[in-house]
Amino acid sequence: MVKNNVGEFTADGKVFRIEEMFPKRDLINYLWSESVVCKCNQFGFGESFAGIGAYRRPLDNGERLVYIKDKTSGKLFVANRNYEKEPFEKFYAEVGLGTHRVVSEYDGIGTEFTICVPKEGFSELFRIKIANRSPSARSLSVCFFLRPCADLSGHASYGFGDFDEEIDGLYYPHEGFAIETDYKHLYFAASERADSFDVDTATFIGYDSVAYPAGMKEEKLRSVGSTFQDFYCGALRFETELLPGEEKSYYFVLGTEKTHKACAVSAKKYANAAFFEESVKSQYEANEKMIEVFRVNTPDEYLDIQTNVWLKRQLSLGKTWGRVYGKGFRDVMQDITAFVSFDPELAKKRILYALKHQYISGNPIRMYEPDFKYPYMDGAAWIPATLLSYLKETADFSVLDETIPYLDSQAEESVYSHTERGLKFLLTSRGKRNLILWGGGDWNDSMNNAGMLWKGESVWLSIATYKAVGEWMEILAGAGRTDELKSWDAARKELKESILKYGFENGYFIYGFNDYDEKVGSEDCEEGKIYLNPQTWAVLADILPKNQLASVMDTVEKRLRCDFGYTQCAPSYTHGTDKLGRSSYFQPGLVENGSVYIHGVAFKVVADCILHRAENAYDTLKRLSVYNPKNPDSGMEPYAVSNMFIGPENRYRAGEAPMSWITGSAGWLYRAVTEYLLGVRAEFGGLRIVPCLPAAWNGAKVIRKFRKATYEITFVKSDKNRITVNGREIEGNFIPYQTGKHSVICYYKN
Amino acid sequence: MVKNNVGEFTADGKVFRIEEMFPKRDLINYLWSESVVCKCNQFGFGESFAGIGAYRRPLDNGERLVYIKDKTSGKLFVANRNYEKEPFEKFYAEVGLGTHRVVSEYDGIGTEFTICVPKEGFSELFRIKIANRSPSARSLSVCFFLRPCADLSGHASYGFGDFDEEIDGLYYPHEGFAIETDYKHLYFAASERADSFDVDTATFIGYDSVAYPAGMKEEKLRSVGSTFQDFYCGALRFETELLPGEEKSYYFVLGTEKTHKACAVSAKKYANAAFFEESVKSQYEANEKMIEVFRVNTPDEYLDIQTNVWLKRQLSLGKTWGRVYGKGFRDVMQDITAFVSFDPELAKKRILYALKHQYISGNPIRMYEPDFKYPYMDGAAWIPATLLSYLKETADFSVLDETIPYLDSQAEESVYSHTERGLKFLLTSRGKRNLILWGGGDWNDSMNNAGMLWKGESVWLSIATYKAVGEWMEILAGAGRTDELKSWDAARKELKESILKYGFENGYFIYGFNDYDEKVGSEDCEEGKIYLNPQTWAVLADILPKNQLASVMDTVEKRLRCDFGYTQCAPSYTHGTDKLGRSSYFQPGLVENGSVYIHGVAFKVVADCILHRAENAYDTLKRLSVYNPKNPDSGMEPYAVSNMFIGPENRYRAGEAPMSWITGSAGWLYRAVTEYLLGVRAEFGGLRIVPCLPAAWNGAKVIRKFRKATYEITFVKSDKNRITVNGREIEGNFIPYQTGKHSVICYYKN
Repeated sequence: MVKNNVGEFTADGKVFRIEEMFPKRDLINYLWSESVVCKCNQFGFGESFAGIGAYRRPLDNGERLVYIKDKTSGKLFVANRNYEKEPFEKFYAEVGLGTHRVVSEYDGIGTEFTICVPKEGFSELFRIKIANRSPSARSLSVCFFLRPCADLSGHASYGFGDFDEEIDGLYYPHEGFAIETDYKHLYFAASERADSFDVDTATFIGYDSVAYPAGMKEEKLRSVGSTFQDFYCGALRFETELLPGEEKSYYFVLGTEKTHKACAVSAKKYANAAFFEESVKSQYEANEKMIEVFRVNTPDEYLDIQTNVWLKRQLSLGKTWGRVYGKGFRDVMQDITAFVSFDPELAKKRILYALKHQYISGNPIRMYEPDFKYPYMDGAAWIPATLLSYLKETADFSVLDETIPYLDSQAEESVYSHTERGLKFLLTSRGKRNLILWGGGDWNDSMNNAGMLWKGESVWLSIATYKAVGEWMEILAGAGRTDELKSWDAARKELKESILKYGFENGYFIYGFNDYDEKVGSEDCEEGKIYLNPQTWAVLADILPKNQLASVMDTVEKRLRCDFGYTQCAPSYTHGTDKLGRSSYFQPGLVENGSVYIHGVAFKVVADCILHRAENAYDTLKRLSVYNPKNPDSGMEPYAVSNMFIGPENRYRAGEAPMSWITGSAGWLYRAVTEYLLGVRAEFGGLRIVPCLPAAWNGAKVIRKFRKATYEITFVKSDKNRITVNGREIEGNFIPYQTGKHSVICYYKN
Repeated sequence: MVKNNVGEFTADGKVFRIEEMFPKRDLINYLWSESVVCKCNQFGFGESFAGIGAYRRPLDNGERLVYIKDKTSGKLFVANRNYEKEPFEKFYAEVGLGTHRVVSEYDGIGTEFTICVPKEGFSELFRIKIANRSPSARSLSVCFFLRPCADLSGHASYGFGDFDEEIDGLYYPHEGFAIETDYKHLYFAASERADSFDVDTATFIGYDSVAYPAGMKEEKLRSVGSTFQDFYCGALRFETELLPGEEKSYYFVLGTEKTHKACAVSAKKYANAAFFEESVKSQYEANEKMIEVFRVNTPDEYLDIQTNVWLKRQLSLGKTWGRVYGKGFRDVMQDITAFVSFDPELAKKRILYALKHQYISGNPIRMYEPDFKYPYMDGAAWIPATLLSYLKETADFSVLDETIPYLDSQAEESVYSHTERGLKFLLTSRGKRNLILWGGGDWNDSMNNAGMLWKGESVWLSIATYKAVGEWMEILAGAGRTDELKSWDAARKELKESILKYGFENGYFIYGFNDYDEKVGSEDCEEGKIYLNPQTWAVLADILPKNQLASVMDTVEKRLRCDFGYTQCAPSYTHGTDKLGRSSYFQPGLVENGSVYIHGVAFKVVADCILHRAENAYDTLKRLSVYNPKNPDSGMEPYAVSNMFIGPENRYRAGEAPMSWITGSAGWLYRAVTEYLLGVRAEFGGLRIVPCLPAAWNGAKVIRKFRKATYEITFVKSDKNRITVNGREIEGNFIPYQTGKHSVICYYKN
């Protein structure tokens, strides 16, 4: 099994069991629905919120604790945290498809603590299962504690917390003046009536510790309400007797509603076994469905697990919640290109919704929900690729005719017009070198002051625009609008000329020119002499002959590689400058300043494959892997990709991988593996198969659901490239779409 | 001695010893200079910041811990927190004049942990004194831990923390793009080189607890720097040997500077015995000086301690820092009227500075540093009283000619003009009843939506304006501008007519009329039928004949009194309404919605004294006292007044007194006792003595420094009111000012 020092996957890859409950850094899991996000660490602690339109209504934040007290011996422990690191017989957590489960056994008591977010409603669910595994009857206190976020305004006077008869649970309203949301009522209820409760930490914990709270030292909790608290708690305590072998489950819900009455209704509806089990099942099934769309079997078991299960799952967090802190236009666009294969309907919906956040000028805002309007310039450059992915997956060209308004104009225009306005915005935002203006930044968010005087020009953004126009032309051709191609092609060529004239030197592409006519990402610079993305995107954009691009990528290998990937730039800046902005102020090796920014490295894998550099591509994936033996202590979750590995130039934390889940890396790595390494690419009329497999592999298998067809593709290493479909050899590598089940054998030559 | 269940004062009242280290709620102390504020609880935990102009640069926040580990036995404890509530031989804290000191003795080790804010610089100081009180030599690890606030931007990538050779201590820079302050460098240094250190909690505490951190379980701390941390820590650990009877002190500084170099200079300058002892002395002396201005000796020992020491100290927090979270215009104005007697120079400075925050329209903003511009209407009504207090204390009429600009105009005008514009603003902001418009609110901040349609009128604000015009006339008369009196008097009378016509019904004053022509604070209302402030201010403004005012105050006794004071309104609102605003949404009994809002009750004591209702006045003070036997469990600090006692209508926490220190109550209680109960009032030409002492007292003594004179006043209960000065009887109760020392005997009749 695929395992490292923190735990292992089950054989089907659908569960990761965290065996090291005290790892180097917290291992993060996310659970979510369309309406709620719940973050939790290995113990199940974390923050959650309900997304009500653009408003984020926090539900709880911090510890979620299952206290078990043996009433005979007086012994108290926390089953899902083991504060004192007692010698538990069992103690592990399972990261599942839509669940998080902490399992422990201690002092003869088995406990399972499971968290799940239901498909509907603004709530999160918990199940606590207790089993008496000792030979004698046990008299136990079981208490579930969490930290509800009742305060919506900073005015503690608006709220109170108390047991409520009608809700049959704890109730925390926060009715105040001019509160931003209607969802002012929070409830925390259980499947049975608690014997005692507390609503504030001053009462429950007192001057003791969360591990041994005052309340658990007593016979029962004080069971009094409170008000004017900055932080409430929810503690529901149950007294129970368990015979040997007996087990018992408690079900809980923490949720928010508009009214007291609705809380009572929801508490009843959600806090019970049937609803919990149904929610777990529904989450699991939704994930299963997604998994089935693309299943791969290669000699690299971890790559399979990532591709089949966890990259998809991470991607589907982005699908619904963007980067959780907000929905970046470019992030949404990129995620769509990856999840379109397993959720084309949603992809369309998301495209249309995202395009509402574009100004009529053509430039989209950087992020929505919440809106962030700093003048980033790259938004429009992402639209054609996203549309193209959607069109290739579905052949649904009608999407181009769908109409939506602009951010600053209610005039509805077609997707076609939105895209065209976007590209025209870019093509008319030019500096003195005829390159695209840098403005507030591009993909590199943190180069946020290089162009704010509207003089600086971005070479990367110019390449991205060149690429985008090419994609748009592909769309136009597919849509039969061939008469329009000529003028776009001219615009593209003109841009390319400037890119090559000003942006290509010493065998690679510089990043740009700032407002002060200084080069960025050039050999002439003191620091940040070379950037990764302009090189990889030159390949993605096919802006030079292949041999020249290969030489550019050789430079990448030479200048940017480290043990665990490729740095975003090198060398890192050691002195901040306002002529560039934020990224230059970051500590060396962090984020855009010389980290192994995984999103960027995923572009690199794609570029390698485009140039048929299979060994480079696969080697890069292995460097990024949590199982890379040269970076065994990254701290990264095996089931979620991080935003970065801290770069080798960092004095303190090189190789560590903070910021998991919330990154565009998942989508690009997914595409890199499925569309580029395995090379199974959707096209308007069918599938193209262009494998780029490493020499060490003898072959691989893929099952790809595509529209109303299923393709079982077997890759066989051979001395010649040839493909058979249902036993018949085809010409080239393109398989025209047909419904039904097809068996494909792809013989490939390394 | 004056004591209750939490501790007691020393005989001179200058120190409160907290003996109950685990009280109902944290007991708060504040330490501060002109540049730094440090809040701490009984253990010395809390938050601190440097005030750099209007910018607040946080220094640390959270626990400050002195770990002691016996290296022979391995036993570890936290000397200033005693997490496990071990049977310490000693464990108390001393709230002193500018210091906080936690003293403990356990396992043969005596520890003193003292915090002090130095007069200069952006830093806070700590001393840890360790004494071996056991009969054998001891080998100890001593570690001081705190939680520095290194992050100024939310971008963890900007910062790092590490030991720095030049600083000879820990260094946490946060150089980033567009940081709001120049003070980006934080340092934490000791009087000697630490043997080991940690800079992040993940390393120091790990998965253990703050009580038994991972770092203290080892031989030494890991001594590695870190970066990209959301929260840093500062842990400096020393290994030492102490012979029996030996003691040792460590001195620490946590501070901020603009540069690394300046950190190194300051660390050296501040982290040593001499600077610490000098700082303690300087804080003490400044307080002593303040205490000497007014010393009283009555049969009520607690009243003496409050008046002589702690109300002044609390008031002087306001003197420098307003309400800490910001400088409310009205708050600053009111504090000045109280502290002017012990710091007239600063009073003048503060008046001039505050008046810069007035629009040229005449209306001041609600708060500055940070600015808060919601359209509150009462600001200008506070100016004349403040000026009058200053003029009576100093006779320095030149202040009226000082010029300062307006918030929205650089045109400098005199204080005279500022005041006049303020009053004219009020007198021209009138509704259809000819009362003053309510706008965004008045003293009652939380009635913030009763007049936002600019129709609602406030009766209280009309009374306050009537009072303010009277005070202005007193100033004009004093300044010899008698020709101006007539027109002001006419305006005043006209306003009074409307107040009495529309605002006085059923024997008391209503609060006002909201935008919808609905009465507020009237018998006609369903809730909030009567408010305290319109009644007390009617007395302060002398708006009716004395007998009628007495009857108004009888109504107050009948309708608003409870065991621990007088509620701000009754009954409390149980349903929020946007026709009033915030206060109606507060839970019953909280803040402006029916709490015993102490600031308001202080007005009531003054009103009682004005009406010579000595028993009512004194009884009210006793109700507010932390030693009130009918409310023994308020949780209030004996050395600091709270903002409120939660009102009797609150279901959960009636009688509790949260929100200590930060309240205008201190100033008004100080004035109530000194100027009204004892009745020693400054006037332009001297002192007026109008005692209003309770029957239970046989007399009292006061020493009042007034300008260049000192008056020793003995109050003697008698059958007739008469006063002798230096042995000679005077006519009436006015003592014309003369330099020198004077012995006054005031015979008074109850």
